Amino acid sequence: MISMRFAKGHGTENDFVILPDPEGALDLGADLVARLCDRRAGIGGDGVLRVVRTRALGEPLTGAAASSEAAEWFMDYRNADGSIAEMCGNGVRVFARYLLHAGLAEGRSIDVGTRAGLRSVTIEDNGDITIDMGRPEVFGDGGARLADGSEVRGLRVSVGNPHLACMVDGPVGGLDLTSAPALDPAAFPEGGNVEVVAPLGDGVLDMRVYERGSGETRSCGTGIVAAAVAATRAAGGAPDQGATWRVRVPGGECIVLLDARGARLRGPAVIVAEGQVRLG
Amino acid sequence: MISMRFAKGHGTENDFVILPDPEGALDLGADLVARLCDRRAGIGGDGVLRVVRTRALGEPLTGAAASSEAAEWFMDYRNADGSIAEMCGNGVRVFARYLLHAGLAEGRSIDVGTRAGLRSVTIEDNGDITIDMGRPEVFGDGGARLADGSEVRGLRVSVGNPHLACMVDGPVGGLDLTSAPALDPAAFPEGGNVEVVAPLGDGVLDMRVYERGSGETRSCGTGIVAAAVAATRAAGGAPDQGATWRVRVPGGECIVLLDARGARLRGPAVIVAEGQVRLG
Repeated sequence: MISMRFAKGHGTENDFVILPDPEGALDLGADLVARLCDRRAGIGGDGVLRVVRTRALGEPLTGAAASSEAAEWFMDYRNADGSIAEMCGNGVRVFARYLLHAGLAEGRSIDVGTRAGLRSVTIEDNGDITIDMGRPEVFGDGGARLADGSEVRGLRVSVGNPHLACMVDGPVGGLDLTSAPALDPAAFPEGGNVEVVAPLGDGVLDMRVYERGSGETRSCGTGIVAAAVAATRAAGGAPDQGATWRVRVPGGECIVLLDARGARLRGPAVIVAEGQVRLG
Repeated sequence: MISMRFAKGHGTENDFVILPDPEGALDLGADLVARLCDRRAGIGGDGVLRVVRTRALGEPLTGAAASSEAAEWFMDYRNADGSIAEMCGNGVRVFARYLLHAGLAEGRSIDVGTRAGLRSVTIEDNGDITIDMGRPEVFGDGGARLADGSEVRGLRVSVGNPHLACMVDGPVGGLDLTSAPALDPAAFPEGGNVEVVAPLGDGVLDMRVYERGSGETRSCGTGIVAAAVAATRAAGGAPDQGATWRVRVPGGECIVLLDARGARLRGPAVIVAEGQVRLG
């Protein structure tokens, strides 16, 4: 019998099992992560956020991760299948909310260590949380064939992970994301996420996303940034000259701020529950 | 902000949000139930089990429910959409497990009040929980067309709710339950659950189930009983002359005991987590 404290939270319905483990005492194997994320036999979540002091992490912080040494708290993020992931935009917001909720951090600015490096988090007046998403890279045009055989064209964008962000004319609601869109393997050797994006006017975008390995999801932080980049380009602008987009996804709404420094993602994050979990 | 204690548990992966409310203080509207059962923005579950003293229930117990007056504890079961349901075979096991876990009941025999009447629950030596499922009614043959157009034939059985339990020759794994099987509306005016059942020998059945209104699920207590009735008939027996089946479903395994008194369903039930939930 394994017993541990947990919390559950979500950012635009991208949801996480949060495991407070300040001193790095948990032995968090892939099997345990998968059992915690099981939505029927466990708690359920898109991933696990282990809340550990950076000095207690127990793994070397090299390469991109090295800057995380400066942060008191490290977000040890795991995908629902137990694999290790470097970053998760919605996850960082939920992680920061948990730190505040649990009294582990305070103030309007928090540094969070991640395997992709240090992330600076800002708490806004209305409680929204803004995080630095780095500098998106644009690789040119691309296309995908949706499940029903229809074709969409879009912009290939990297936000740490690969995206094809496709501006479409009609409403996004009718597009078929029931199975993985087919991508050109030469352009996406490791696959990619596909966003379909409709401009609603006044700087508002409507978006749905198919995440590789997960299917259609309620929200995807990096996908929201990729959509904002594609919309800026489609409107004749350049992302590094500044643009702000309000992006609606099935799980809620985020704001993307683009400028010469890169992309910032602002959105809600809530802690829904906390308690004790026991798995036999 | 609504805050309340909760637990989460499951029986063969049919999972529930459990709300301890001994004195009937909770105002549990359909909207709150739906928010608690939301798997991303809430706790997540197939339904809610409110744990309330029968005398504090606050609703009249008439008709089938009248016998529940004798039980100290009442299972106020709600579907995930907030609608009220009368009974749930997997839910009663989880309810009984919670009573034991929380120290609200003790011993090997517990009475649980439900809207379908009093249910006597037995705790087995290995921790399994056995509940009386009443007397299944057999209505004769029927058929259904699966999503891929193939036809299955089965037995129409009521276990409080209507089922078509179909014995099939090959493995059940390959059958198409991706959308609702088409039933003869004359035989199933309110629709019904469809089970596909393969005998594995030695009294073991392999079963999958499509539940009306829910889709394919990991387990269905009444469906497991319907499968056992159909298997008994297919083997040339009569359910009321006694039969025992071990029924494997995607979420685990249950045992069905059939005799002249009716059907008993025996299976596991576990409490996975407990804590405090807060919804904004």
